[in-house]
Amino acid sequence: MDKKETRALLEQVAQGKLTVDEAVLRLKRQPFEDLGFAKIDHHRALRQGVAEVIYGASKTPDQIAAIAAAMLRQGQQTILITRLSPEAAAQVGTQVKLDYREMGRIGIVGALPRPDGLGRIVVASGGTSDMPVAEEAALTAEALGNETLRLYDVGVAGLERLLAHLEELMSARAVIAVAGMEGALASVIGGLVDCPVVAVPTSVGYGAAFGGVAALLSMLNSCASGVSVVNIDNGFGAGYFASMINHREA
Amino acid sequence: MDKKETRALLEQVAQGKLTVDEAVLRLKRQPFEDLGFAKIDHHRALRQGVAEVIYGASKTPDQIAAIAAAMLRQGQQTILITRLSPEAAAQVGTQVKLDYREMGRIGIVGALPRPDGLGRIVVASGGTSDMPVAEEAALTAEALGNETLRLYDVGVAGLERLLAHLEELMSARAVIAVAGMEGALASVIGGLVDCPVVAVPTSVGYGAAFGGVAALLSMLNSCASGVSVVNIDNGFGAGYFASMINHREA
Amino acid sequence: MDKKETRALLEQVAQGKLTVDEAVLRLKRQPFEDLGFAKIDHHRALRQGVAEVIYGASKTPDQIAAIAAAMLRQGQQTILITRLSPEAAAQVGTQVKLDYREMGRIGIVGALPRPDGLGRIVVASGGTSDMPVAEEAALTAEALGNETLRLYDVGVAGLERLLAHLEELMSARAVIAVAGMEGALASVIGGLVDCPVVAVPTSVGYGAAFGGVAALLSMLNSCASGVSVVNIDNGFGAGYFASMINHREA
Amino acid sequence: MDKKETRALLEQVAQGKLTVDEAVLRLKRQPFEDLGFAKIDHHRALRQGVAEVIYGASKTPDQIAAIAAAMLRQGQQTILITRLSPEAAAQVGTQVKLDYREMGRIGIVGALPRPDGLGRIVVASGGTSDMPVAEEAALTAEALGNETLRLYDVGVAGLERLLAHLEELMSARAVIAVAGMEGALASVIGGLVDCPVVAVPTSVGYGAAFGGVAALLSMLNSCASGVSVVNIDNGFGAGYFASMINHREA
Amino acid sequence: MDKKETRALLEQVAQGKLTVDEAVLRLKRQPFEDLGFAKIDHHRALRQGVAEVIYGASKTPDQIAAIAAAMLRQGQQTILITRLSPEAAAQVGTQVKLDYREMGRIGIVGALPRPDGLGRIVVASGGTSDMPVAEEAALTAEALGNETLRLYDVGVAGLERLLAHLEELMSARAVIAVAGMEGALASVIGGLVDCPVVAVPTSVGYGAAFGGVAALLSMLNSCASGVSVVNIDNGFGAGYFASMINHREA
Amino acid sequence: MDKKETRALLEQVAQGKLTVDEAVLRLKRQPFEDLGFAKIDHHRALRQGVAEVIYGASKTPDQIAAIAAAMLRQGQQTILITRLSPEAAAQVGTQVKLDYREMGRIGIVGALPRPDGLGRIVVASGGTSDMPVAEEAALTAEALGNETLRLYDVGVAGLERLLAHLEELMSARAVIAVAGMEGALASVIGGLVDCPVVAVPTSVGYGAAFGGVAALLSMLNSCASGVSVVNIDNGFGAGYFASMINHREA
Amino acid sequence: MDKKETRALLEQVAQGKLTVDEAVLRLKRQPFEDLGFAKIDHHRALRQGVAEVIYGASKTPDQIAAIAAAMLRQGQQTILITRLSPEAAAQVGTQVKLDYREMGRIGIVGALPRPDGLGRIVVASGGTSDMPVAEEAALTAEALGNETLRLYDVGVAGLERLLAHLEELMSARAVIAVAGMEGALASVIGGLVDCPVVAVPTSVGYGAAFGGVAALLSMLNSCASGVSVVNIDNGFGAGYFASMINHREA
Amino acid sequence: MDKKETRALLEQVAQGKLTVDEAVLRLKRQPFEDLGFAKIDHHRALRQGVAEVIYGASKTPDQIAAIAAAMLRQGQQTILITRLSPEAAAQVGTQVKLDYREMGRIGIVGALPRPDGLGRIVVASGGTSDMPVAEEAALTAEALGNETLRLYDVGVAGLERLLAHLEELMSARAVIAVAGMEGALASVIGGLVDCPVVAVPTSVGYGAAFGGVAALLSMLNSCASGVSVVNIDNGFGAGYFASMINHREA
Repeated sequence: MDKKETRALLEQVAQGKLTVDEAVLRLKRQPFEDLGFAKIDHHRALRQGVAEVIYGASKTPDQIAAIAAAMLRQGQQTILITRLSPEAAAQVGTQVKLDYREMGRIGIVGALPRPDGLGRIVVASGGTSDMPVAEEAALTAEALGNETLRLYDVGVAGLERLLAHLEELMSARAVIAVAGMEGALASVIGGLVDCPVVAVPTSVGYGAAFGGVAALLSMLNSCASGVSVVNIDNGFGAGYFASMINHREA
Repeated sequence: MDKKETRALLEQVAQGKLTVDEAVLRLKRQPFEDLGFAKIDHHRALRQGVAEVIYGASKTPDQIAAIAAAMLRQGQQTILITRLSPEAAAQVGTQVKLDYREMGRIGIVGALPRPDGLGRIVVASGGTSDMPVAEEAALTAEALGNETLRLYDVGVAGLERLLAHLEELMSARAVIAVAGMEGALASVIGGLVDCPVVAVPTSVGYGAAFGGVAALLSMLNSCASGVSVVNIDNGFGAGYFASMINHREA
Repeated sequence: MDKKETRALLEQVAQGKLTVDEAVLRLKRQPFEDLGFAKIDHHRALRQGVAEVIYGASKTPDQIAAIAAAMLRQGQQTILITRLSPEAAAQVGTQVKLDYREMGRIGIVGALPRPDGLGRIVVASGGTSDMPVAEEAALTAEALGNETLRLYDVGVAGLERLLAHLEELMSARAVIAVAGMEGALASVIGGLVDCPVVAVPTSVGYGAAFGGVAALLSMLNSCASGVSVVNIDNGFGAGYFASMINHREA
Repeated sequence: MDKKETRALLEQVAQGKLTVDEAVLRLKRQPFEDLGFAKIDHHRALRQGVAEVIYGASKTPDQIAAIAAAMLRQGQQTILITRLSPEAAAQVGTQVKLDYREMGRIGIVGALPRPDGLGRIVVASGGTSDMPVAEEAALTAEALGNETLRLYDVGVAGLERLLAHLEELMSARAVIAVAGMEGALASVIGGLVDCPVVAVPTSVGYGAAFGGVAALLSMLNSCASGVSVVNIDNGFGAGYFASMINHREA
Repeated sequence: MDKKETRALLEQVAQGKLTVDEAVLRLKRQPFEDLGFAKIDHHRALRQGVAEVIYGASKTPDQIAAIAAAMLRQGQQTILITRLSPEAAAQVGTQVKLDYREMGRIGIVGALPRPDGLGRIVVASGGTSDMPVAEEAALTAEALGNETLRLYDVGVAGLERLLAHLEELMSARAVIAVAGMEGALASVIGGLVDCPVVAVPTSVGYGAAFGGVAALLSMLNSCASGVSVVNIDNGFGAGYFASMINHREA
Repeated sequence: MDKKETRALLEQVAQGKLTVDEAVLRLKRQPFEDLGFAKIDHHRALRQGVAEVIYGASKTPDQIAAIAAAMLRQGQQTILITRLSPEAAAQVGTQVKLDYREMGRIGIVGALPRPDGLGRIVVASGGTSDMPVAEEAALTAEALGNETLRLYDVGVAGLERLLAHLEELMSARAVIAVAGMEGALASVIGGLVDCPVVAVPTSVGYGAAFGGVAALLSMLNSCASGVSVVNIDNGFGAGYFASMINHREA
Repeated sequence: MDKKETRALLEQVAQGKLTVDEAVLRLKRQPFEDLGFAKIDHHRALRQGVAEVIYGASKTPDQIAAIAAAMLRQGQQTILITRLSPEAAAQVGTQVKLDYREMGRIGIVGALPRPDGLGRIVVASGGTSDMPVAEEAALTAEALGNETLRLYDVGVAGLERLLAHLEELMSARAVIAVAGMEGALASVIGGLVDCPVVAVPTSVGYGAAFGGVAALLSMLNSCASGVSVVNIDNGFGAGYFASMINHREA
Repeated sequence: MDKKETRALLEQVAQGKLTVDEAVLRLKRQPFEDLGFAKIDHHRALRQGVAEVIYGASKTPDQIAAIAAAMLRQGQQTILITRLSPEAAAQVGTQVKLDYREMGRIGIVGALPRPDGLGRIVVASGGTSDMPVAEEAALTAEALGNETLRLYDVGVAGLERLLAHLEELMSARAVIAVAGMEGALASVIGGLVDCPVVAVPTSVGYGAAFGGVAALLSMLNSCASGVSVVNIDNGFGAGYFASMINHREA
């Protein structure tokens, strides 16, 4: 409850339109719906006007379907379900109409919104193994109203593949750089473009890759300015963050 | 050299205005000035129209002054020198006119540009010990043409201090959250605002703070969406990144 | 054997009521029953008057049932079995009467004692995935004679959910804060309440959560005073510790 | 501002005793005094009635003296200054009357309060090198109104030293166990006593002690129930936490 | 080939009893039998006169049986097979006569030798979960000709259990201390006895036990003198090392 | 596109043989074939004249077979498929003629080239468990045109096994030292030979081997000069690197 | 107080030679002298009949001198002071007669005892930088009544240096292997000798040596049997442990 | 002593030219000169015919000068002294004629040999802070008879700087890639060239650079083939290794 609302509330009390008890109650009233196993924050949904997100990893298909149904009842147009396994997707799909994208392990309920961002978000990834995380990022961005361009398999060991797309990179409003192993992609792109680069380390690799730690450290130490980092394999976080950059009113 | 410049060059060759040898030479000509100990990239300076940055930590005062002088000769209006110790600042100041801000260990040559961003960048920090990093972030953002608001000493252990500034936080175009120890500030702010939060872990703390690792991990694992992270103590990186967010043409 | 018992023993020897050999024997006599695979410390059970605990993770269902039976024979009223899988619970249940709580993976033999603590223990958890650990803590506290209040899904990314329960938090004798990912919940609660906060990091999260390490470090570095920490996922330890705080004679 | 205060405020508005503008202002008024470099939370001071604490490590002697003076002006009886070097203490002492305890690096302004806790806090430490941290804990507890008993140099390698004090240990309301190296003291005491044990790992040791990490891990994995842990070398935190345990109204 | 053998060889050459070519060949002759997948060092077997050891973890049952058969052909009396799963044991048992001890995952071919050491080796373990590693150590010691005494479930959280066996501990020639979690057992025993303590950290525990790292660090930092450490879960190594201590001619 | 090609292109433009638009297009043309899920760099294949490599771990059998078929169409003589499981190999084998070597998990399409290197590459490994990695290295080297010699089971605990092959080691052009556990093999060989030693740590071991980290650190800290290191279990990388050393024109 | 002493005490009570109060007092009497800053365990000194040890690192010269004087008063013949800096040695030397060995940072008060062990202890070290730790080990062993042989600068990179001393190594009762960097010395010696090898990792090295961690891990993972490990740089611990091995009654 | 020498020795014995005692003595004679504090291996020096190396970090100036003098007496033409501080260099310079290169902390005694390698070694470094390590590598290579080319300040954040030198890179026999921070330089160069790349991580950077660990991991995980890695800051090791590659007879 911000200052303006507080003032309005107090004025109602001052004018006798609201009793003190009612005001106390209203100050305490929760802006979320409680389903028992989850509290749905409808304020956030309305505020953004785009997709609401369900983190699917720790929920049963029944819970996911119930949350989605509640959101639809509240008038939500687009619902994004992340970390959704094919098995769970099959079950959810029996209860709500679901567009499932297996590569990114993402389910979409409702239509994707029309892009309304300031520009385009480029999602670049190093190798084929990084594609699931890249897809999670790209689909998230699209569900939040962004135009995206995918540049996959442009790892730095074959620099010409990346340079072949220099123009697209340089015209982006934000770039999401997805890479495992040594994670150099973020630094190289960061040195080429003038827009923010959101780096996503992936757990791709073996041995001293340490489940994404090598890529994470590499990206945190990028010698290029204009690079920030999200958690290992957090494609959703990168897509969400890039969408904020790409919208004047995030 | 981008596509447009390549085309122009080729057209000059086609029109006989440029010999093949000259073209080869030009294609190889380096867009930076070589001072022996450093290569200054004037392209980047011109492209951004705002401040050029000198990383002061690994350079002698004489080197810093020489680089700054070269930049001024190229017409640079504002030069930001980061990680500048008071001793080095005193020496640099004998050779170029320097505005030194000790808290953020930053020296400024020339005038700060007028803010021309989309909105305001809020720089919030947890404790007094985090202030040097916060100042580095704030001054960097200002040198790159941003209006800033500093909210210092608003750590989560005294939540009322942070909530007292909710309005300012919610009206920001980007928030830079600077915190050491457990780094919870980023998550709490990330849950309150709707704009991108750039988190800067600091090396403040002792014992299991591990020189900023605890805060770094905390920020990478933020349960709030819309948070990305830069390196420990990298106030400059956060200011630079937030400035990109705050400018349509970064 | 404490000083008073030693004195009594010596007096019996001095009075000729006890031979030297018997005294030596008694000094060596073990205050525990040996089942072959485990030694049951009946002193501890009697001393506390409340529940005896069986750590179920490393024992077979038969061993668990045998230990519980031996405890019941000694007159134990309540027995708490932690880390008990549904499969093992089913098997144990065929041998002793068992109240199994699946969420917290806890089995209870006998009735829960009436609360006799100084106040109430609040168990707060960040997300739905943290609930198993939170339940282990809450059930442990209840089995040890405490009134508890559960506040689940009050993570710091939605601060209003937590603040809606400020009154309950502030009236607690102790708070158990259960959180994974960045573990900020402990710090935020620590800054709000004036009672001890026992923090339990959970292994919830992925990537740089490192199986609970991020939350553990975050909690150890809490900027709020009055926070101490137990091992990752150690809900039992937190419930036990909070119960000690909540009892004059722990 | 808690619920009762909110209600009182609203009633004043309803009764016309307070204008809406004044109410808004009051809701925003910060319950702390701003000295520029630090915000002093007087609410907290009044609430606890005992000592206010200044963390000395990151402040100049002038800042420390200024904060202490402000606290005294507010009527604070006892002020505890932690992590205060002898040099800083000498300087602070020229501005406020200071009782400096070098071993624990603690300065005390005003008189120590009379103990008013439920029982006694025992501070046990492993070796002579752990004494500074143990003293920080003991002095903190005393400044917060607790009777303490120091048992130093009772490391587990000479078990008879510890067992010689079994009676004192068993009669404590809380034990603070301070140990570096392998940190086994916490487990051994935890197995002997029935009150809460607050374990403080210290950075004492070399090689694979890793600045306290070995002791920290050892304490987190204590096989004894009733042990919780604070940060490495955090004697203050342990004293503060134990004091909360030892006071009905912490 | 030691100095004495070299001299004998050279004297044979000098006396014309051996040609130069034969001598070169003999100097190169390998003292081991090559089975293709493994080289068996018969010198070592003969030298020690006791058990030969086969590390079972990385070999197929057929390979194990073949190696054992070759050893028997060479006259080996006792063969110890470590890290042998019940499944593999069943298969090996169809080819050679095998005494399988499941708890320690050890198979024995031939008879255990009569103890011929200087004294007795005590194997102490902290909890029931540590028993497999303790058994591996005890059986290894027995196979190498040592009398052993097992003291299991004597963890430091119930000190009286350990102290009840003080006499046995103090009369040992060497103690093997096996413990997971915080590994304090090694320090406590090391402070009680005057013989060498070989500490074996186990991977028992969860969370911050980090698969035995906490116990390992704890043991390396033991504040008691006379403690040395082997790898996590390396019961065999501890039994072997203790046997060397217990034999004048190891 | 190197300098010479650039000059040729420009000359064609200058001579009117190529329009500006065509030249721009050609400068952007990619030197690789795009199969949708992978981009094949035929330049690299032609340049080296030997085997092309497919990293099998992250590809489906169908993808592997399709890539191999495309390579064969381009005239590739030898194709090496690494990290190929027996199951995948069986499937790939139904589509292309495949020589599968299970120990090294490598599939070969086409004939192995005749060795054309400067000398011989010796592949030495510590224990039988290291053999899969050693085989990956040896087969890679052979596929790239090198003569190899395998010295397996020559770990430093039985130094005589290694010294028996001193002559072969000293006559190598490069040695690949493959070892897990403590990884001492690289240092010992590095001290014996005068050629480059490429060290491959393996994930063989348990406990404090930490999945190859112990061997990795050991090898990086080799006290012998002339040792460099590749990633844990990276037999392919070592074979590739050694082949470069063994060819004047790598 | 062991069983025999307890019996004697009880018999005195039974015979009326000792009152109950006196017995209680005696049972509580500490077998150590309390100097305020340290408790001296005279029992241990008498028990071993050889040198008593003072850990010098954390004590002032005055404290060290006072402890040594108290020990001399109790009749101690030899006192070993470890981790004694040259500056502290100079000061201690003004108060007690001190034989200071700078290389091993050890001071000796009184005469070294005559060797009375079962055999000889060989102290081998890898490089010249490891010599201080090796000297600490060797002098400790000598002060505890052992004959020693030093083999320094026999690192595995020059294997011939080590092999030149094979005979001395093979005739030792115990070998102390001191090495930094990759720590391979322990494995190589462990493979050559049949006596126990006590490995001491040193903090010698840089970069990925991580202050001795690389050597520590290497030694813990030794592929040779019969190797155990002490803390990084713990020469004293190795000397003490090897002395126990070398004495029937340690 | 290799096989040929052994045969010659044995033939002398067979021919009566050498007594058995003399032969035994000779077999044991050490191929190095013992200066007390160091053993100089003259065999190695003669074998390589180029520079002998003294690791200066752990030696006193007097020791360094003595070793150098002994080497000169043996006829060594070039002596390389690494890790030599300016202060030590000044002192050494008073005893032997020394050419000191401060940037690389290297001293050279005697003349640099004429290059006799197969090709040229390129030393590329990321930033100015990496130059000391790069110089150590370059000077080492030159002292071992290699032609070198230095490409400094060619970090991947300004890719055009690196691409401007593509021709030099592609014509190298080996490239040494020196980089701190994220260490991406090795991968990018590895993708551009066809010769072996020896990667040297440096300790340049701050925060999550962890003293070179980030760069080390990045390089170990390089997605480009043909990259191997040496220890952090080990310029000498890289120069030595590259020289071996560049010489048929290393």
